[in-house]
Amino acid sequence: MPMRFEKNNAGEGCGAFDVGGAVFGGPKLVLIAGPCTVESRDQMMEVACAVKEAGASMLRGGAFKPRSSPYAFQGLCGKGLEILAEVRARTGLPVVTEVLECAHLEAVAAAADMVQIGSRNMHNSVLLRAAGACGKPVLLKRGMSARIEEFLLAAEYILEAGCTRLVLCERGIRTFETATRFTLDLSAVPLLKQRSWMPVVVDPSHGTGVASLVPAMARAAVACGADGVMMEVHAHPETALCDGDQSETPEMFARTVRELKAIAEAVGRSV
Amino acid sequence: MPMRFEKNNAGEGCGAFDVGGAVFGGPKLVLIAGPCTVESRDQMMEVACAVKEAGASMLRGGAFKPRSSPYAFQGLCGKGLEILAEVRARTGLPVVTEVLECAHLEAVAAAADMVQIGSRNMHNSVLLRAAGACGKPVLLKRGMSARIEEFLLAAEYILEAGCTRLVLCERGIRTFETATRFTLDLSAVPLLKQRSWMPVVVDPSHGTGVASLVPAMARAAVACGADGVMMEVHAHPETALCDGDQSETPEMFARTVRELKAIAEAVGRSV
Amino acid sequence: MPMRFEKNNAGEGCGAFDVGGAVFGGPKLVLIAGPCTVESRDQMMEVACAVKEAGASMLRGGAFKPRSSPYAFQGLCGKGLEILAEVRARTGLPVVTEVLECAHLEAVAAAADMVQIGSRNMHNSVLLRAAGACGKPVLLKRGMSARIEEFLLAAEYILEAGCTRLVLCERGIRTFETATRFTLDLSAVPLLKQRSWMPVVVDPSHGTGVASLVPAMARAAVACGADGVMMEVHAHPETALCDGDQSETPEMFARTVRELKAIAEAVGRSV
Amino acid sequence: MPMRFEKNNAGEGCGAFDVGGAVFGGPKLVLIAGPCTVESRDQMMEVACAVKEAGASMLRGGAFKPRSSPYAFQGLCGKGLEILAEVRARTGLPVVTEVLECAHLEAVAAAADMVQIGSRNMHNSVLLRAAGACGKPVLLKRGMSARIEEFLLAAEYILEAGCTRLVLCERGIRTFETATRFTLDLSAVPLLKQRSWMPVVVDPSHGTGVASLVPAMARAAVACGADGVMMEVHAHPETALCDGDQSETPEMFARTVRELKAIAEAVGRSV
Repeated sequence: MPMRFEKNNAGEGCGAFDVGGAVFGGPKLVLIAGPCTVESRDQMMEVACAVKEAGASMLRGGAFKPRSSPYAFQGLCGKGLEILAEVRARTGLPVVTEVLECAHLEAVAAAADMVQIGSRNMHNSVLLRAAGACGKPVLLKRGMSARIEEFLLAAEYILEAGCTRLVLCERGIRTFETATRFTLDLSAVPLLKQRSWMPVVVDPSHGTGVASLVPAMARAAVACGADGVMMEVHAHPETALCDGDQSETPEMFARTVRELKAIAEAVGRSV
Repeated sequence: MPMRFEKNNAGEGCGAFDVGGAVFGGPKLVLIAGPCTVESRDQMMEVACAVKEAGASMLRGGAFKPRSSPYAFQGLCGKGLEILAEVRARTGLPVVTEVLECAHLEAVAAAADMVQIGSRNMHNSVLLRAAGACGKPVLLKRGMSARIEEFLLAAEYILEAGCTRLVLCERGIRTFETATRFTLDLSAVPLLKQRSWMPVVVDPSHGTGVASLVPAMARAAVACGADGVMMEVHAHPETALCDGDQSETPEMFARTVRELKAIAEAVGRSV
Repeated sequence: MPMRFEKNNAGEGCGAFDVGGAVFGGPKLVLIAGPCTVESRDQMMEVACAVKEAGASMLRGGAFKPRSSPYAFQGLCGKGLEILAEVRARTGLPVVTEVLECAHLEAVAAAADMVQIGSRNMHNSVLLRAAGACGKPVLLKRGMSARIEEFLLAAEYILEAGCTRLVLCERGIRTFETATRFTLDLSAVPLLKQRSWMPVVVDPSHGTGVASLVPAMARAAVACGADGVMMEVHAHPETALCDGDQSETPEMFARTVRELKAIAEAVGRSV
Repeated sequence: MPMRFEKNNAGEGCGAFDVGGAVFGGPKLVLIAGPCTVESRDQMMEVACAVKEAGASMLRGGAFKPRSSPYAFQGLCGKGLEILAEVRARTGLPVVTEVLECAHLEAVAAAADMVQIGSRNMHNSVLLRAAGACGKPVLLKRGMSARIEEFLLAAEYILEAGCTRLVLCERGIRTFETATRFTLDLSAVPLLKQRSWMPVVVDPSHGTGVASLVPAMARAAVACGADGVMMEVHAHPETALCDGDQSETPEMFARTVRELKAIAEAVGRSV
């Protein structure tokens, strides 16, 4: 059965597309940066200005957070979306943020340029379909134990619902290794490129869980063909409410961007 | 922080409880049997009568099916619930069926005695909370790459929403082994028993994906302390719309029940 | 290509066989017990008498230990073999012990009734062949990341070298779960039984790494068809030189044997 | 306890070192290329000349092959070593080849410039120690289910035996993904670099099992800091006796080298 994710059946979806000024799938890489979680207006403005200055083309930040424990901080929710919308307006950076439930889709789509489906919801077909029909571009993260085939079929749910601007994100899979939080599966990048037309980005922050490994894995991602990189950046990782261990500082991020520039040129692309 | 899933913090939730006549957590094991999917009224009546005759204490069957591909059969949906309600009324067997989205919870809770959260939704905190508040007992399946700690925290979402009748189900985890569909992790049974007060059942049908392995793994589940077993039974596995490879026939199921009876007695329980 | 491990090609190897008085593959289960490591003559005599009294049919204990670090205790080596031979003579219990290199095979075969190839050497074809030709029965443990197919092919190396008394041992595979040291894959038991003629035993001590989980998993092993169980027992686990966390005391072992007796009878066997 | 693999305890081992003209750990990358298996004198001469012309700095080829089945081709053994020695003499390329047992170490060390310990023997402490004492540089491949910590401890066995020229090789780990043969864990490269002084190379041929993925993963390896890449190259992959699916042709290899040149320069190195 022909699939919409395949190169020959792409229709409108094929090729590069623009998301609030950031073009996915073109020669220029998309660098998505920002904190794990929206904590406050000041925190977001500070980090947004810093990552924009350093070369980021899109801002990330979670208003709704999927957490293992019901007692962990679940995000600022609606207030978080307001902050994202304001920071987006003031910096001009397009915004991607995660949605956890259909009921929030409208509000998320209104505040952000791109809707993210997280790893824990990759098999949530109801949310996949709703996101695919919301009219906004979608960033789909790979499930932490999803095979490539399942990842593509999850994408098919979104495409089948009408979405034509879909980006796939490799973010690490679960293995026996304990030195890293997950095992970043970079072979997913060329595999997804061979099987489908969709742009692919890589999240080395979640993929490793260790800030000091992020620059090397971001370089590797670009070298093997990723169309972009998504990195957690926090002005003060040591006080971050979430995922501080895997967050770069703005200075580290700026240095990483310079490294990515060199790799991008080596593969015929730019930052 | 004290958790509701812990033995000392259980409150009302602690101890055995009744679900439409089937008692979870008591000396008698709960045998849940039925097809992967509700296909028709005749199919369900045939299999329900057969498994009741063989000793099943609860009927399973999916009206809403989570599928990897959007083009695979997604279940009879509302019509499936009607069939389940009718078969339940005529056979007297309590029914458990999966819910995929909050919008269906009311209808599922009206048609069934117990609401199932599937493996693919174990991290879907929105659905966990909604199911926990729906007033019906809940059966929570372990995510296919969830650690025991995460499984218990997912249960905590349900308990925190008000549920006091919650059953955990080990159903296999994803590993490198390819001879089975998943690797059934039976050590989860004593581990969950040590950590929490909740009854634990095991699904050897999904856990192995191979019908000929189901009887042995069902026996093992009872031997290591499971409070029940959930098995796929189809009158004609070779024509099943879904998961025929892992479905027992009613005859195989009857034989398995007899085997489980002996094991149950060996551990001081009954079938 | 017909394989020697298959039921139809077994030749002499087929059926039950005796190892120093313990019969593998017959109606009576073989219970192998003893410490991870031979530490001293007194330690071995104490535990050997205790496990024999409790119902063990074979003694285990490592003279040569495979360790992750070159600085960890590597076993008493030749001195350990002497102790094993002496304890065997005085208690009448047959002994199984691991061999790490071809050069030790002769000494190990002289001191013990059965030669063990450990998980870390399952892919060591040189050692497999040499053990298969040494004239003694062999116990082959599954590699910690070996698929069932690979496990059987490793057995084939031993059979092809002339061995006709070979026992397979499931001892846990490596997965993402961290609550246990490995994930005991009990589905291996019925799978191996379907595919081959060889007796299968299970090691729940290494398979879980947690002493309190051993009784439940030992019961499960017998319930799903294992021909025996291999358990670490140490008179003083808290001072064991190796693997104390997963060792039962003789009292726990005696209780476990009583539990296994009931399960064995439920599946038509005895202890 | 201080370890020899740590940066501060390296002693002589620290820094770059020469293996038959190829310098590991220096600014210039080491490209190791050749077939999985030595099949004939003509095959080796043809591919050796081609990879040398394309920029390879070292030749690989197996004389002794570790195979899952005892009936699979096990290599030309001694005859294979003769061929390697001859091709080395005629092309001037240094040679690395795998050793499977201590008894062959002397012959392998005489014929080759570097002794390889394969993935299946990473836990074979006897072979590790013997290789470490043989006087030749050693290439140690990561076990397919070894954690980084265990990989470093296996290296410690070799270093403790006297070896001062040791190279580590990431070659893929076993996961649930089936689209690739293994999952190449590139985060191992920066992790190993942080923890130890040893040069690290990557084998994307075994790591993916798919020839079309090799160029992308080789680029990624260099981008994240690898000191070299090991690639399977066969003049006629479709007729290779072993691993044809993952072998590049000499033309593909030459193109990959050109790509690696660009990436190497982007990270301040050369090919």
